[in-house]
Amino acid sequence: MRIVALDKESKQSILNDLLKRSPNNYSQYESTVNQIIDRVRAEGDKALFDYTLQFDKFTLTAENIRVTKEEIAEAYTQMDENLIDVIRQSAENIRAFHQKQLRNSWFDAKPDGTILGMKITAIERAGVYVPGGKAAYPSSVLMNVIPAKVAGVDEIIMTTPPGKDGKVNPGTLVAADIAGVDTIYKVGGAQAIAAMAFGTESVPKVDKITGPGNIFVALAKKAVYGYVSIDSIAGPSEILVLADETATPRYVAADLLSQAEHDELASAILITTSKELAEKVSEEVDGFVKVLERAPIIQKSLDNYGYILLAESMEDAIDAANAIASEHLEIITKNPFDTMTRIRNAGAIFLGEYASEPLGDYFAGPNHILPTNGTARFFSPVNVDDFIKKTSIISYSRQALEKVHNQIETFAKSEGLTAHANSIKVRFED
Amino acid sequence: MRIVALDKESKQSILNDLLKRSPNNYSQYESTVNQIIDRVRAEGDKALFDYTLQFDKFTLTAENIRVTKEEIAEAYTQMDENLIDVIRQSAENIRAFHQKQLRNSWFDAKPDGTILGMKITAIERAGVYVPGGKAAYPSSVLMNVIPAKVAGVDEIIMTTPPGKDGKVNPGTLVAADIAGVDTIYKVGGAQAIAAMAFGTESVPKVDKITGPGNIFVALAKKAVYGYVSIDSIAGPSEILVLADETATPRYVAADLLSQAEHDELASAILITTSKELAEKVSEEVDGFVKVLERAPIIQKSLDNYGYILLAESMEDAIDAANAIASEHLEIITKNPFDTMTRIRNAGAIFLGEYASEPLGDYFAGPNHILPTNGTARFFSPVNVDDFIKKTSIISYSRQALEKVHNQIETFAKSEGLTAHANSIKVRFED
Repeated sequence: MRIVALDKESKQSILNDLLKRSPNNYSQYESTVNQIIDRVRAEGDKALFDYTLQFDKFTLTAENIRVTKEEIAEAYTQMDENLIDVIRQSAENIRAFHQKQLRNSWFDAKPDGTILGMKITAIERAGVYVPGGKAAYPSSVLMNVIPAKVAGVDEIIMTTPPGKDGKVNPGTLVAADIAGVDTIYKVGGAQAIAAMAFGTESVPKVDKITGPGNIFVALAKKAVYGYVSIDSIAGPSEILVLADETATPRYVAADLLSQAEHDELASAILITTSKELAEKVSEEVDGFVKVLERAPIIQKSLDNYGYILLAESMEDAIDAANAIASEHLEIITKNPFDTMTRIRNAGAIFLGEYASEPLGDYFAGPNHILPTNGTARFFSPVNVDDFIKKTSIISYSRQALEKVHNQIETFAKSEGLTAHANSIKVRFED
Repeated sequence: MRIVALDKESKQSILNDLLKRSPNNYSQYESTVNQIIDRVRAEGDKALFDYTLQFDKFTLTAENIRVTKEEIAEAYTQMDENLIDVIRQSAENIRAFHQKQLRNSWFDAKPDGTILGMKITAIERAGVYVPGGKAAYPSSVLMNVIPAKVAGVDEIIMTTPPGKDGKVNPGTLVAADIAGVDTIYKVGGAQAIAAMAFGTESVPKVDKITGPGNIFVALAKKAVYGYVSIDSIAGPSEILVLADETATPRYVAADLLSQAEHDELASAILITTSKELAEKVSEEVDGFVKVLERAPIIQKSLDNYGYILLAESMEDAIDAANAIASEHLEIITKNPFDTMTRIRNAGAIFLGEYASEPLGDYFAGPNHILPTNGTARFFSPVNVDDFIKKTSIISYSRQALEKVHNQIETFAKSEGLTAHANSIKVRFED
């Protein structure tokens, strides 16, 4: 793995390279996606059936579009029992962590009769997209569905593309069942997103769409934003390890590779102040690449977006980490909690030698759907807040309004909004 | 004002009409907006200067693009002192309400060495768009800027189009100064949004863009979503009054008109169980329309999107209110708090006879930037959470990871991600 000195130039060039992976750079597919959306909006189920035949080679109908109870029961028999137990335990941990995110409605009351507050309510229906084929990850199903369930969403639906035989990945079905999905529809691609955004005869309109997908799914989500709410649009996975001389090279190397194996656009970066660590990690990486199954993908992603950056000081290293705003950030330093206080931008921070990144992907409880591509500067991990909305509450007594009515009228009139002023004035015109 | 029986058909037809006002229905301007964005991205300041000459007829340069201290001081001298006091008091109320929204980072620690939590950090730089001309509302400046300030955002910039003479509305400048804006740039339109999203030589790149604007501004915000975060895209204003026979017709009528005056696409709806109230409100509206300054706008918006809906039961009325999900909802019933418990979808709820909607627009403290066009089903008022992001925190001890390492490896391998499994395994291979 290449070792590069961390300086202004290398930092900027890496930042530019990483941004090239943005899902925003695929506008050439927008017209195709818009066509699919328009057709689903106009024709409903018929468009879904046509597209499913075209893209998934399966004859979808109003009768077979929903996954049946029997299919879910069958999926359980196709899965290893030990794995089902693991999924259940993971779901339990995810539930426990997300339950701590629940918030109360609140209000503030003053003795003059004023009540101001915010009412928290869950959205009514959420839709989760799950990719088909090799990209069907049961862990992602848990991470999308459980926060909605914990938030108190009334109904959670899922869409996922069927195989040619009309079947859905058993792992997806078991995870959906454990997480508490109400209905699963066998539709994929941009057409599934359109169906959830606008509703069809079979698929009900939802309030929010979450879940990963290919570029067509990502562009479709962006296109329907505003008609419904969406989660942030995920780019390729990333890991950044911030380490000093106290880190174990073998662990750091293994963790870098755990993200590099995702796909060829994935990024794995080590920033360290220790030249020795840099060299040893590079060696360990070479050793692992020889034996790991997904070596071809790993090698390409390391060639494209893998770096070991040697920093002159921990301060420079932290500055670079904040600029990169990595999806996953491991801190393996003498005092990781102290280092953490200076981190401003990251999706998830893993502290110390035993908080290996896959612990967060699979088991600890915090969400693994995290902001990528520098968007941790302003986006958050999927969390319970994504499935609730707030409503302001305002109540004034006559006495409270009377004290301030002149001020409100003055402000409204100054903006030329005289009917606004009038609505306050009429209450005190006697 | 027309009185219509509330039934399934009238409800659906009104919902369809209201949705036609959505800012999503203007895709014909998208290519123009995309061209502007691309040019600003490629050429930076030069594009801003050209567009400002073209659209605003002002020769913008790197020297005059920033509003100076002198211009702000001059703006104060151009404003009524009483009005400045009102703006200050309003700002104080907005600050007090939003301060109650501040949240703490939190963690949960277990005696086996596990720490899980969420770290809350403010975004670094926010950009507020303020329209020029008649649409420059000082109250909106306060509502956009103060939540960011309270959240702890380091730097808040503002963009607003200059007049032909290069001047900016004094109300905008005074409100910006009171709210705590750091720098104001004289740029408007889609080019201002592009400048804040990507940065130019003069305008720094921000993490989040908020603020209202015309359709070009709205489409530009949607186009840059993902590169930066944006607030929800606002549509025309709406008021829905839910009232029974205890309401005072004159107050209800005045409140309906306070929103109808915004523009011809604004919507004002009364839903009531009382035929007498319906008739008296209709009469009062007719009386007010004769005397109010903005009567031509009011009349058009009432003709297009104004309704008095007569419901057979309060239950039906509440169902309709939840379906409409109005930006502003006034509840004027015998027991408004009881009615409120059954409201699920609304931007802001005003309770009782004295919580007139303009009280919320100008003074009470809760934000007046609210979800429109049915998006209160899933969006919230602008609030402090819009200017912070969360980072998951995960720390495990060796002991804690050892207990579960087999389970994590099983889950990772089941998804074919063997390098993920490897990163856990290497920690226990001795």
